[in-house]
Amino acid sequence: MATLAPQKKHKVTIVGSGNWGTTMSKLVAENVVENPALFDKTVRMWVYEEEVTIPEGSRHYDPGSETSKKPQKISHLINTIHENVKYLPGVTLPPNVIANPDLVDSVKDSSILIFVLPHQFIARACDQLKGNILPYARAICCTKGVDVSEKGISLMSEFIGRRLNIYCGALSGANIASEIAKEKYSETTVAYDPPPMDSRAPSPNISPSGSPSTSQVNLISPGKPVTTSSRSAHLTSLPSEYPPLSHENIRKLFHRPYFHVRIVHDVAGVSLGGALKNIIAIASGFVDGLGWGDNARAAIMRVGILEMVKFGQTFFKDSVEARTFTEESCGVADVITSCLGGRNARCAKLAVERGESIYVIEEKELNGQKLQGTSTALEVNEFLKSQNMEKDFPLFTAVYNILEGNAKPEDIPTLIEPKI
Amino acid sequence: MATLAPQKKHKVTIVGSGNWGTTMSKLVAENVVENPALFDKTVRMWVYEEEVTIPEGSRHYDPGSETSKKPQKISHLINTIHENVKYLPGVTLPPNVIANPDLVDSVKDSSILIFVLPHQFIARACDQLKGNILPYARAICCTKGVDVSEKGISLMSEFIGRRLNIYCGALSGANIASEIAKEKYSETTVAYDPPPMDSRAPSPNISPSGSPSTSQVNLISPGKPVTTSSRSAHLTSLPSEYPPLSHENIRKLFHRPYFHVRIVHDVAGVSLGGALKNIIAIASGFVDGLGWGDNARAAIMRVGILEMVKFGQTFFKDSVEARTFTEESCGVADVITSCLGGRNARCAKLAVERGESIYVIEEKELNGQKLQGTSTALEVNEFLKSQNMEKDFPLFTAVYNILEGNAKPEDIPTLIEPKI
Repeated sequence: MATLAPQKKHKVTIVGSGNWGTTMSKLVAENVVENPALFDKTVRMWVYEEEVTIPEGSRHYDPGSETSKKPQKISHLINTIHENVKYLPGVTLPPNVIANPDLVDSVKDSSILIFVLPHQFIARACDQLKGNILPYARAICCTKGVDVSEKGISLMSEFIGRRLNIYCGALSGANIASEIAKEKYSETTVAYDPPPMDSRAPSPNISPSGSPSTSQVNLISPGKPVTTSSRSAHLTSLPSEYPPLSHENIRKLFHRPYFHVRIVHDVAGVSLGGALKNIIAIASGFVDGLGWGDNARAAIMRVGILEMVKFGQTFFKDSVEARTFTEESCGVADVITSCLGGRNARCAKLAVERGESIYVIEEKELNGQKLQGTSTALEVNEFLKSQNMEKDFPLFTAVYNILEGNAKPEDIPTLIEPKI
Repeated sequence: MATLAPQKKHKVTIVGSGNWGTTMSKLVAENVVENPALFDKTVRMWVYEEEVTIPEGSRHYDPGSETSKKPQKISHLINTIHENVKYLPGVTLPPNVIANPDLVDSVKDSSILIFVLPHQFIARACDQLKGNILPYARAICCTKGVDVSEKGISLMSEFIGRRLNIYCGALSGANIASEIAKEKYSETTVAYDPPPMDSRAPSPNISPSGSPSTSQVNLISPGKPVTTSSRSAHLTSLPSEYPPLSHENIRKLFHRPYFHVRIVHDVAGVSLGGALKNIIAIASGFVDGLGWGDNARAAIMRVGILEMVKFGQTFFKDSVEARTFTEESCGVADVITSCLGGRNARCAKLAVERGESIYVIEEKELNGQKLQGTSTALEVNEFLKSQNMEKDFPLFTAVYNILEGNAKPEDIPTLIEPKI
C-alpha cells in the first residue's frame, strides 16, 4: 500500500523570549533548517514588547553612535540585528528566528508550541491563547517547577495542557542557558508521551470536541497517577498531512551537536526533578558553607536524588520511574549543576559562612530575584505535613527545619541518618 | 528451642596503616567500644614499621624538644601518643587501636580482617598471611581498583578471597580519608554477600578443606559472572560461638554518626565503581579545563555513570546491578567527589589549561604519586579492544584516544554523541 508523503510541515513557535527562551529559539532555528522535510523554516518567538537600548555586552554596541543610545523595540532589534540585546547579549541568532510581539498572531498555524515563560506569566498567556491555537497543536513546557501546596501537586505541563486542551510534554536538564547559547556542551531530557488518539484525525479547522474543565489548576492528589488526568481521550489527533510527532522527530527539534537530547515518557518525573533539585542545592550549600568538603556535598546530592525518587514514586506511583532521577539529565545531572554553581547553593553557603539568614543573603545578593529552593522547601513541607510523611523525607524536612530556625546545618547528618 | 548466647567476640585487624587505613582504624575502634557484645575491644592495626620524626602538623610537635627531633618507630608512636604522625598527623586515635609491626602476629585469632593496603602490597601480604589466619575469618577490602587487562578483569576482593580461601567483601565510596578522619560527614558503601555455607561449622582449628588454586589472579572472563568463582563451597563457616556476621553487624563495625554506611550485595559493582570513576574524572577535568562550565561537567558525570552501568552489566551480568552505580555512594557520589576535587580531574584540567600532556602535569604536580585514571583508561581500553567493544563505551574510549593523542578534549561531545 503506497503511503502519501506528508504535505504539511510543522510550524514552531517559542512562547517566551527571556534568556532561556531566546537560547531555545536559537537551537530550534538551527534544527528546522537542517530538517526541512519536517519543519517550516521560520521559527517564531513571542516577545513581550519593550523598549531597550543596546548594552555594552552586545556585538552592536557602539558608544559613538546615536542609534546605540536610542531606545528601540526589542522585537525590531531581534528581527534586524538578530540579537536579543537585553536577555542574551553577545549571541547572534539565526535569521530564521522571527520575533513577534503579538502572542495570538505568533502562534497562528503553529503545530508545535514551546513554552519558555516565567512561571507567573503562564496562566495569563494560556488565557490569551485559548481558542486561538490549532486544536491539534502539541506543546513542550521548558519552564521548570511544579506548584506544590497542602492541596496537592500540579505540574506546569499539566496546567498548560489542560488550559489549552492539547498535549504538553516537558523539557528539563542541567541547562544553564548562557552556556548553551555559547554552544558549550550540555544535555537535556525531554519528556514526551502523548496519549493514544484516534488514527482518524478530524480536519484541521474543526474545534476540539468535549469541553474539559480548564477553569482551575489540576491538582494531583497523592497516589493518583498524573497520567490519568493527562490522558484524556478528547485530545485532537494530528492530521495525517503532517509528519508524525514521534520521539525521533521531537528529538530532531531540540538535539544539537552541543545539546544532546534524551527522550523519556515520564513527564511527572522530569517536572519534579526541576523543582526538587532546588531543595537539595540548599542542603548542599549549607554543608559547603560548613567547610565539610566534597565527600559531604556528594553525599547530600546522593541522598537528595533518592528522596526525589521516593517522592515521585510515592505521589505519582503509576507514572514516575526511578531512573528519570538517577539516570537522566533532568535528575542526577541537574542536581549536580545546581549544587555546584546554582544560586540556591551559593546563597545557602554564604548564609552559613556569614552567620546570616538565607533570606538576608537573598536580598543582598540577588538584585531582587528570588530563590526557588526556599519556597519549594516550604511548599513541599506543607504538602508532606498534610500527608503525615515528613519523617519519610528526612533531607527535605531537614532543609525546611533549618530555614525555619528549628535546626542547624550541623544537624543534617543526624537528621538524615537512617535508623536501622 | 533455646539459643545459646555467643561466647566469643570478633577480633578485628586492620591490615594497613596509611592515610585511609589509619582513618579506618579510628572509626572501627570507636565502634567496637560501642558494641562490646559483638567485638573485642582492641583493634589491631598492622603497620609497616619505619622510623619517623614528629612533623609540624602533629599535636605532639615541639620544636624545643629533643624527642621531637629523634626518629622513632611509627608503631611505638601510635601506641604511646595515639597518633600516626606520618600518615594522619593531627588526628588522635582511640587508645584501643594497637599498632603491630608483625603482620602474622597482628591477625592472630582475628575473625575480621580489613584490608587497606596500597594495591601493589596486597599480593605479598596475602602470601605471608596464608595459613596464618583463622580459616573462617572474613575480610573486607577497602583498597579501590580492579586489575583490568586484555585477559580479563580481576577484583581486588576476589584476589584476597582466593589467596586466603576466605570470603572477602568490599568497601568503597565518596571517601576522602582526611575529611573522614576529621569527622566531617560522608557516606560509604559496603558490599558483603558471603555464599551460603554449611550450618555445621568445623571447629575453629581445622584447616580449610579443599585446595583452591591460589597461584595466580583469578581472571573473570567477559560475561562470566563474578559470583560463580567467589561462591566456592569450600569456604569455612563461622563457628556458632560467634555472633553472626550479618549485614546488621557488619554495619555496626563501620557506621558512625559522621560516616553513614549502606550495605549491598554487589561486590563486583562496588569494586568496579572505585576504578572506573577515575576515567570519568579525567574526562570531567578535560571539559573543565576547556572552560565549558557546570552543564558540561554534570553531563560527563551522567554519561560516565551510565557507561559504568553498561560495563558492569555487560561483563558481570549476573551479579552487577545498575543501582550500585546510580544510587550508592560507591557509584554516583564517588564519581561526583572525584570529578570535583580528585587528582585525576585536577591534572586533566591543568593539562588542557596549560596545553601540556597529562603525563607532564602528573610529574610536575604529584610529587612522584601516580594518576590512577590514566592507567585504568589504558587497561580498560585494552580489554574493550579485545572484546571488540570500544564503540559501546564511547566516553571511556574518548578518554583513551585523548590520552594517546588521537583526539582532543574538544572532540568529546562528538565522540560521545548517541547515533540515532
